[in-house]
Amino acid sequence: MSFPFVDPASLGSPYLVPFDGSFRVAECPTRVPDAPKKKASEKALETTVERMDKLQRKLYADDRYSLLLVFQAMDAAGKDSTIRAVLTGVNPAGCQVFSFKQPSAEELDHDFLWRTYKRMPERGRIGVFNRSYYEEVLVVRVHPEYLQGQRLPSGAEDLPALWRSRYASIRTMEEHLARNGTVVIKFWLNVSLEEQRQRFLSRLDDPDKNWKFSGGDLVERSHWPRYMAAYEEALRETSRPWAPWYAIPADDKPSMRAAVAEIVCATLEGLDLRYPELGKKEQSQLQNYRAQLESER
Amino acid sequence: MSFPFVDPASLGSPYLVPFDGSFRVAECPTRVPDAPKKKASEKALETTVERMDKLQRKLYADDRYSLLLVFQAMDAAGKDSTIRAVLTGVNPAGCQVFSFKQPSAEELDHDFLWRTYKRMPERGRIGVFNRSYYEEVLVVRVHPEYLQGQRLPSGAEDLPALWRSRYASIRTMEEHLARNGTVVIKFWLNVSLEEQRQRFLSRLDDPDKNWKFSGGDLVERSHWPRYMAAYEEALRETSRPWAPWYAIPADDKPSMRAAVAEIVCATLEGLDLRYPELGKKEQSQLQNYRAQLESER
Repeated sequence: MSFPFVDPASLGSPYLVPFDGSFRVAECPTRVPDAPKKKASEKALETTVERMDKLQRKLYADDRYSLLLVFQAMDAAGKDSTIRAVLTGVNPAGCQVFSFKQPSAEELDHDFLWRTYKRMPERGRIGVFNRSYYEEVLVVRVHPEYLQGQRLPSGAEDLPALWRSRYASIRTMEEHLARNGTVVIKFWLNVSLEEQRQRFLSRLDDPDKNWKFSGGDLVERSHWPRYMAAYEEALRETSRPWAPWYAIPADDKPSMRAAVAEIVCATLEGLDLRYPELGKKEQSQLQNYRAQLESER
Repeated sequence: MSFPFVDPASLGSPYLVPFDGSFRVAECPTRVPDAPKKKASEKALETTVERMDKLQRKLYADDRYSLLLVFQAMDAAGKDSTIRAVLTGVNPAGCQVFSFKQPSAEELDHDFLWRTYKRMPERGRIGVFNRSYYEEVLVVRVHPEYLQGQRLPSGAEDLPALWRSRYASIRTMEEHLARNGTVVIKFWLNVSLEEQRQRFLSRLDDPDKNWKFSGGDLVERSHWPRYMAAYEEALRETSRPWAPWYAIPADDKPSMRAAVAEIVCATLEGLDLRYPELGKKEQSQLQNYRAQLESER
């Protein structure tokens, strides 16, 4: 197979972020006008998850590729519930989910890719990043004061240059991963300001959901336009054939989940996965092994 | 709640390994005489997995306990397929599965619990060990020559004393974990010599399963009685109310899987899991947050 091992354009997804830097958040729908009904989306998701379970078994047995799924979004866009919906039904032994929260002191004492690099999926596994190194060009971009904790070398005062260098680091890491068999797919769950408001209100209304709410969520909400600008530039700068971004409309959860699952499955189906064969030595011994077991009777 | 947080005896499982050292492998069935039919077991498993999915959400939200499931067995007893059957259907974000194979050079340069200790489940998660530190009193006991790679301090030549000290280390570690909120459950999937023979033959017969077979499997099979002796002593010495062993008949896979899932669910149901409440400060702010969101209209 030639690199990249799967051509994202061949999947025909309307949500693929172009590779030429022309991506614009303003042109990006948060709701699909002709979205299928809830039931239809749920049915589609169910079928896709069954396909994924089979593909994961083959990915695991094949043991040459791994799959990295990156999820980024504003609060309440549905990262957790999408990961649950898309991956519940896949064998957890072949799946590793990591959530990246505030970095620890040890993590801050390393470069900005270090803590996520440690969590890259092993060969044969699906790795899921709930938030990722992209936080470093999203939340940190909106709050450059966080950079102080990172004790960067001199030169880092030039913020535009800093973001450019971070995009470059991310691009080269992702290309390296992809060349070495990690298939990288990135999802931005694109929720609207109004839909987030509704979801926050419902968290406040339902005592069982209260614990998911924090006053800090409203602070981040107040920075909405700056976040959108950060997403726009990050997606433009880092959507590439070997590590494509997909901007998924997130106001309707059932169709969002079905769309994510479909992209994951179609990507895996584009790989030349196969069951491994026994080593030559073992192969030639098969008759002996069988005879040995049969003689026990 | 008093310690241990769940009393295994209260679950009424016939497979619980007693805590008084009276356990005997010879009295332990590999097949349940009146096992339910395949369909009935599969239906039971399905219902139990749905219960487990809900319990896992609560375990995660509650964030005070973690659950550690240890699986040990002879080859082809069905560890992988049981883990898949029992945990597929649970959110992978709340579940961490680790397989322990031959230790690496770095792992051998540490004490025998180190590599598994690093993989203990985080609070709120289900951790699954496919093989574990018990290998150190099972496969290493059958092959004491492996100890040479471990460069133990002097005194380790007295093998009976070495196994006793390892049981003691395991017991104290598990009690420590349990006191600190890790609920430990251990499963020995008890397959018969004859059933293993049949399963090996079917791996040899089916080209798609060939890759799961290795000549080394027959070598280990030839040590069967020594393995059974090692299991018997290990289970006697380490089945305790805070970290019980269950010896599950493994010749019939559907009923084995249903039995494992039932024990996991019943144990989680024995915990006082609850959804957390918002902090006092946040609680008192709820009206302000709501007003702020509503004023946006």
